[in-house]
Amino acid sequence: MIYGASNFEQPIRWGMVGGGLGSQIGYIHRSAALRDFNFNLVAGAFDIDAERGRDFGLRLHVAPERCYKDYKEMFAAEAAREDGIQAVSIATPNFTHFEIAKAALEAGLHVVCEKPLCFTTEEAKELERTAAAQKKIVGVTYGYAGHQLIDQARRMIANGELGAVRIVNMQFAHGFHNVAVEANTPSTKWRVDPKYAGPSYVLGDIGTHPLYLAEVMLPDLKVKRLMCSRQSFVKSRAPLEDNAYTLMEYDTGAVAMVWSCAVNCGSMHGQKIRVIGEKASLEWWDEQPNQLRFEVQGEPVRILERGMGYLHPEALAEDRIGGGHPEGLFEAWSNLYNRFALAMTAADEGQGVDFWYPDIHAGLEGVRWVENCVRSADQGAVWVDYK
Amino acid sequence: MIYGASNFEQPIRWGMVGGGLGSQIGYIHRSAALRDFNFNLVAGAFDIDAERGRDFGLRLHVAPERCYKDYKEMFAAEAAREDGIQAVSIATPNFTHFEIAKAALEAGLHVVCEKPLCFTTEEAKELERTAAAQKKIVGVTYGYAGHQLIDQARRMIANGELGAVRIVNMQFAHGFHNVAVEANTPSTKWRVDPKYAGPSYVLGDIGTHPLYLAEVMLPDLKVKRLMCSRQSFVKSRAPLEDNAYTLMEYDTGAVAMVWSCAVNCGSMHGQKIRVIGEKASLEWWDEQPNQLRFEVQGEPVRILERGMGYLHPEALAEDRIGGGHPEGLFEAWSNLYNRFALAMTAADEGQGVDFWYPDIHAGLEGVRWVENCVRSADQGAVWVDYK
Amino acid sequence: MIYGASNFEQPIRWGMVGGGLGSQIGYIHRSAALRDFNFNLVAGAFDIDAERGRDFGLRLHVAPERCYKDYKEMFAAEAAREDGIQAVSIATPNFTHFEIAKAALEAGLHVVCEKPLCFTTEEAKELERTAAAQKKIVGVTYGYAGHQLIDQARRMIANGELGAVRIVNMQFAHGFHNVAVEANTPSTKWRVDPKYAGPSYVLGDIGTHPLYLAEVMLPDLKVKRLMCSRQSFVKSRAPLEDNAYTLMEYDTGAVAMVWSCAVNCGSMHGQKIRVIGEKASLEWWDEQPNQLRFEVQGEPVRILERGMGYLHPEALAEDRIGGGHPEGLFEAWSNLYNRFALAMTAADEGQGVDFWYPDIHAGLEGVRWVENCVRSADQGAVWVDYK
Amino acid sequence: MIYGASNFEQPIRWGMVGGGLGSQIGYIHRSAALRDFNFNLVAGAFDIDAERGRDFGLRLHVAPERCYKDYKEMFAAEAAREDGIQAVSIATPNFTHFEIAKAALEAGLHVVCEKPLCFTTEEAKELERTAAAQKKIVGVTYGYAGHQLIDQARRMIANGELGAVRIVNMQFAHGFHNVAVEANTPSTKWRVDPKYAGPSYVLGDIGTHPLYLAEVMLPDLKVKRLMCSRQSFVKSRAPLEDNAYTLMEYDTGAVAMVWSCAVNCGSMHGQKIRVIGEKASLEWWDEQPNQLRFEVQGEPVRILERGMGYLHPEALAEDRIGGGHPEGLFEAWSNLYNRFALAMTAADEGQGVDFWYPDIHAGLEGVRWVENCVRSADQGAVWVDYK
Ligand SMILES: NC(=O)c1ccc[n+]([C@@H]2O[C@H](COP(=O)([O-])OP(=O)(O)OC[C@H]3O[C@@H](n4cnc5c(N)ncnc54)[C@H](O)[C@@H]3O)[C@@H](O)[C@H]2O)c1
Ligand SMILES: NC(=O)c1ccc[n+]([C@@H]2O[C@H](COP(=O)([O-])OP(=O)(O)OC[C@H]3O[C@@H](n4cnc5c(N)ncnc54)[C@H](O)[C@@H]3O)[C@@H](O)[C@H]2O)c1
Ligand SMILES: NC(=O)c1ccc[n+]([C@@H]2O[C@H](COP(=O)([O-])OP(=O)(O)OC[C@H]3O[C@@H](n4cnc5c(N)ncnc54)[C@H](O)[C@@H]3O)[C@@H](O)[C@H]2O)c1
Ligand SMILES: NC(=O)c1ccc[n+]([C@@H]2O[C@H](COP(=O)([O-])OP(=O)(O)OC[C@H]3O[C@@H](n4cnc5c(N)ncnc54)[C@H](O)[C@@H]3O)[C@@H](O)[C@H]2O)c1
Repeated sequence: MIYGASNFEQPIRWGMVGGGLGSQIGYIHRSAALRDFNFNLVAGAFDIDAERGRDFGLRLHVAPERCYKDYKEMFAAEAAREDGIQAVSIATPNFTHFEIAKAALEAGLHVVCEKPLCFTTEEAKELERTAAAQKKIVGVTYGYAGHQLIDQARRMIANGELGAVRIVNMQFAHGFHNVAVEANTPSTKWRVDPKYAGPSYVLGDIGTHPLYLAEVMLPDLKVKRLMCSRQSFVKSRAPLEDNAYTLMEYDTGAVAMVWSCAVNCGSMHGQKIRVIGEKASLEWWDEQPNQLRFEVQGEPVRILERGMGYLHPEALAEDRIGGGHPEGLFEAWSNLYNRFALAMTAADEGQGVDFWYPDIHAGLEGVRWVENCVRSADQGAVWVDYK
Repeated sequence: MIYGASNFEQPIRWGMVGGGLGSQIGYIHRSAALRDFNFNLVAGAFDIDAERGRDFGLRLHVAPERCYKDYKEMFAAEAAREDGIQAVSIATPNFTHFEIAKAALEAGLHVVCEKPLCFTTEEAKELERTAAAQKKIVGVTYGYAGHQLIDQARRMIANGELGAVRIVNMQFAHGFHNVAVEANTPSTKWRVDPKYAGPSYVLGDIGTHPLYLAEVMLPDLKVKRLMCSRQSFVKSRAPLEDNAYTLMEYDTGAVAMVWSCAVNCGSMHGQKIRVIGEKASLEWWDEQPNQLRFEVQGEPVRILERGMGYLHPEALAEDRIGGGHPEGLFEAWSNLYNRFALAMTAADEGQGVDFWYPDIHAGLEGVRWVENCVRSADQGAVWVDYK
Repeated sequence: MIYGASNFEQPIRWGMVGGGLGSQIGYIHRSAALRDFNFNLVAGAFDIDAERGRDFGLRLHVAPERCYKDYKEMFAAEAAREDGIQAVSIATPNFTHFEIAKAALEAGLHVVCEKPLCFTTEEAKELERTAAAQKKIVGVTYGYAGHQLIDQARRMIANGELGAVRIVNMQFAHGFHNVAVEANTPSTKWRVDPKYAGPSYVLGDIGTHPLYLAEVMLPDLKVKRLMCSRQSFVKSRAPLEDNAYTLMEYDTGAVAMVWSCAVNCGSMHGQKIRVIGEKASLEWWDEQPNQLRFEVQGEPVRILERGMGYLHPEALAEDRIGGGHPEGLFEAWSNLYNRFALAMTAADEGQGVDFWYPDIHAGLEGVRWVENCVRSADQGAVWVDYK
Repeated sequence: MIYGASNFEQPIRWGMVGGGLGSQIGYIHRSAALRDFNFNLVAGAFDIDAERGRDFGLRLHVAPERCYKDYKEMFAAEAAREDGIQAVSIATPNFTHFEIAKAALEAGLHVVCEKPLCFTTEEAKELERTAAAQKKIVGVTYGYAGHQLIDQARRMIANGELGAVRIVNMQFAHGFHNVAVEANTPSTKWRVDPKYAGPSYVLGDIGTHPLYLAEVMLPDLKVKRLMCSRQSFVKSRAPLEDNAYTLMEYDTGAVAMVWSCAVNCGSMHGQKIRVIGEKASLEWWDEQPNQLRFEVQGEPVRILERGMGYLHPEALAEDRIGGGHPEGLFEAWSNLYNRFALAMTAADEGQGVDFWYPDIHAGLEGVRWVENCVRSADQGAVWVDYK
């Protein structure tokens, strides 16, 4: 149970790039990081529009001289300060992630980066090398993975409660972009333009979320080959897709399906994962994240609830309120930022950590998956060996 | 509203092949046919074991001399009677359907046949020709299609309430066969043996059910190409699959996915269909068949209920009890048998009917789909043109 | 598992009073009784309008001379026949039940009577005496009780799986009568007129349904006192209520609440029962009758499904189709009529039966409960000792 | 949409009494208040054990000299400081609320107090007078009311979308205290002891939560009379109840039922409110707080979702993340603390506010209701005029 006491004597000095006023995701970064005195927001280049970013920074009680016009200025100026930032979060459109993350690592900062980490596995590996050289950690905000029942699922599977896993069905399929809303929505506009979004829209934007949940739950599975069929139902989005099916074969013989969709009318999120083993299945839905269905063949379906004593102790450790009171996405992110903080501090002390979190490797895997999907799709939705 | 009054002065004289004591599906045929005085059960060859079949027939109040040892004897003897049967239902394992249905048609009988209608499109076409020549109808028991909300969905789509259809997701994915239950279950044993089951297990056994729902809802869509990936998780079932994903492309540019599975641990049926249009989606689940979700993008999800005045009149016509009282699978089948009876009578009078029902064409399409799926799967899950 | 074979060499010869064309409940009586060759419909006085009743009877394939103008004529004429009816079902408005049931018993018939059995406990006791004297059985159609999971609940409670029962919450709360629909609906008109409906509307019309479910599940509980508060939200219905809360205390110290309502806008049925014991709760909802929630404190909620091997054998005995395929209200009624038939035959042979069904005692208890509720309500919703 | 920018140049200087390490509710106070730079935690008397409280305060980064041994010391010392606290939150067991809140107001502090505000309406009125005299606000943490769909419901009802309200059903019915867990749980122990808990257990502890939701949704309804029946199923809890039913009549003729229960085995929270009008109903459940059911009689049920454009603008104003991403209880509390902060600042400027929040009046009404319930229950569950 978390009561809000800081893990540290001194919070980590922290800055942000992007995530300004009006950004979809900036607030949840701050809300998660600042909770519980683990980070202190002391600097920022919050906006592509420097002035707007500065105004916003002031309203976040950042000192005026530490509201920077861009990340370059910030990294330079902060590096020069005794009390300069130790970590930075990057919440900008996709095409900037690589260059900002690289610069941040080179400036000696720990990094929390939005997904997708970058556009190519080449880039991801370069970031991995840089992070290793700099002894810095990179966290990637696959935020849903912070829900404690995801960890519960991982432990149940590891304990053999499902038997050998056969099938993994994943989906993230919302309906908000059933028409060309991008015409009037800046947050959507860049997402459907390959220059800014990268080689895919829904695959990278949302499909990688349940994919990462599967990686957490099933850390040992390796994709052997996959095929991906993608469509642009709103024609102007081509070549980027607003719907995609990906089929996968793992090296164990297990198979998987990922449905990524932004034109699933009427659906709010539709992010689900179902893991089917020889004996039992587990199912989780991000819109009701406090429940996990456990379905043993031949027994009544069981609905596991967050916060209950029958869960694994580790899946209870990050509770912030008793069971029955719904925790939401903010708690999931807070859990991740909590782990990021611990990992950063450990790294600074030359140590590793004994818990999982979405790290540079997770970021790389997401990029790799998109790359393989696109390669398959562009050849006519054929099977391709995973590489 | 149906009050149980017969459609006819004289019920149709009716016999059964198969569907004996212990068969999974025999009872629902009788229960549906005999309801409402539309059919009269007067003859039968109910069992592969003639004696057991005869005993059972007697308990169904069939006259002793009309409890036959096999279908051949029955068709011959009944043809010789003034009051011989006019129609027959075939509820035997798959491999017998073709020969029995053919013989029945040739004996001048209307036929209700279990799915799959037969093993190959060649056979299906032969049945089609025979039926046409004999001026007899063939109904195929895609029983779920008899639920009235399926008809409601068809009408809403036809009315443009979804806009152009983009995506159709289907599944029938239960968990009852997660292990080799066939060792001790005769009903399952023949299903996993190609000699008796045909070229597929789950594709033909269950996948064709939601496929037919899609055909009812979307009568104009034509499959252009598909790809199918199938697995035998219980190894002894190979070459027949217990899991399969099928991706499809329609000629309009719409796409579809069908998940057929018998190893989905913990799931009872898991038969669902979701049709996604430009503006809205419809979703139906066979375990709660009295509800239909209607999800217009940007509006609250609506849950339509059977029996309510806001439905299309045709989707109310077959109500047997007021809304709120759950109708179940027996009512769905009763609705189909009701339509079969009307179609048979109309055919006898040289007329057609102005309502849909799962007919020989539906049977043929199911067989064709399995054939295409298997062709794709056997080439390594590649795309094949639909033929 | 029921396969539709008759329990008997000869079906019981059966007639109906009421339940004509357009009646809400007549069809389900026929559909349940005629299923499985247990009853044979050979006579009827189906309608208050003799001609309409006769026309309808003919369409049910009843012989013209056995379509009677009223129940008196029917009972007399049938008594005079060798092959006269042996049992009759009464599906007429409430105020006629007593006189028709009495006449039927006196005519030597077994009776299935709609609820409420009559208007007063005095009348109910008279029927009880008459039935005993005549050695005839009286079944009362608390139809929902025929769902097999109700029997499952009874057995689980008897087995101590809930511990001592503390609380029973019941409700039947639909919204169909939120305005004065009776102006244009004959079926509703008599229900809100004390002359035809009796001393209550929703208490007797719907509240007694979950009450009977509680009696089945908890056969040993005795009400000690109760209080009832009733309202007529549609004013013209006064003195009859369209909403009522009843609180009850049992002799064990357990308590109960019954919410009966016809103005619960938007609700289809809202019939639910939740039994709460020291250790666990059970909950059942009539709109999803194939599921039963079993909630052990400190364990994940379990959802029991009809047709599954983990249920008590008796709760599986009346399955008509495998689990996962939804059975509906018609199957529940069929189960009751099946038991009625067995009880009638046993009675004729001077024997009792070892299964429960809603009998004359159940009918009497429903009437008693309404009487007590009304007595409380009319004194200002005060507590009254149960008598 | 809230992006985390503070409402103020300077956060409100804030302290806490109670809510220490291990307390159920302390963390959510801090998490809600500290979010978004509206409050700054600068002082505290966090624990009945002064040393433990001090240790904990330090881990919350409170200055050592401002970790006080008790509230008296804190109020005195802080009053003496230039930068002393301006507001205090009280998260201690019930019996201390009155004296601490009174002292806080007298020390010139704004107060956020846990429910129940105090033990008697006399006390509540005294607090009301003191607050008025001191021109300070008192917020009471009926935290669920901060969910935005509660405000949506209020506005829909005010707009007449339900028609005149007839029935309000409320419940808060969990199962965590089905046995005498208090033996080993300090947080429960005081709750079942009248000396510390006040005149009731579940009525005041949980029943007042949905009661307040009803007050928010239906600000004009006045209770005319009520009756309450309460039980102590765990006998050692007597005279305090662990189950209670309360029936109420409003002056408009509408009626209500409140079920308060801590022995509802298997239920997590079971906090629900259903408001039924002439035309439509609204239903909300605290375990899925992002959904609101809107059920117009004769139309399909609609499920409203947080964050969607069809909601009232005011019900969107406090969104912190897009629709579909679940917000949880922490966001609800954050919204209340946000309003508390605005109300405090307005009061300091001699102004009122144009939004609602759970204020001293709400606190008083909760106490009044418990008082009336207990008065009824103690006379044998009779109707009492509300006073
Ligand atoms: N993890 C998740 O669940 C999740 C959810 C939404 C978005 N995202 C990711 O977050 C990132 C941002 O997405 P968004 O939806 O918030 O986008 P957005 O367009 O809503 O906001 C982007 C923000 O970045 C700022 N910005 C742009 N370029 C900048 C630059 N060079 N320097 C500084 N600031 C700059 C903009 O001013 C804006 O404030 C994307 O990579 C997206 O994929 C992740
Ligand atoms: N429409 C549906 O929803 C549905 C559901 C289940 C089964 N089915 C189909 O129904 C058919 C039967 O399946 P089942 O599950 O009832 O099988 P089953 O094995 O349970 O029963 C088969 C019955 O047919 C009898 N039989 C076998 N060969 C016969 C013959 N030559 N002549 C006469 N009787 C014979 C057997 O004695 C037995 O009574 C299959 O084709 C199956 O695909 C359809
Ligand atoms: N068990 C249940 O779940 C359930 C459900 C609905 C109704 N009911 C009960 O069934 C009974 C009938 O209700 P309904 O809704 O069908 O009513 P209805 O008004 O819809 O139908 C009544 C039928 O009885 C006929 N009738 C009336 N008086 C008659 C007479 N003297 N002789 C012969 N026929 C006569 C009418 O012509 C009509 O066909 C009522 O007692 C009602 O409480 C029970
Ligand atoms: N609003 C809600 O939803 C909600 C939920 C839970 C509890 N509560 C209320 O919050 C209050 C606290 O409940 P809890 O469950 O956290 O109790 P708890 O017993 O878990 O914690 C009480 C805390 O108060 C401290 N404390 C006790 N006396 C004190 C004193 N005199 N001075 C300073 N600290 C003192 C204790 O050390 C402990 O840290 C109660 O009034 C309860 O009704 C409200």
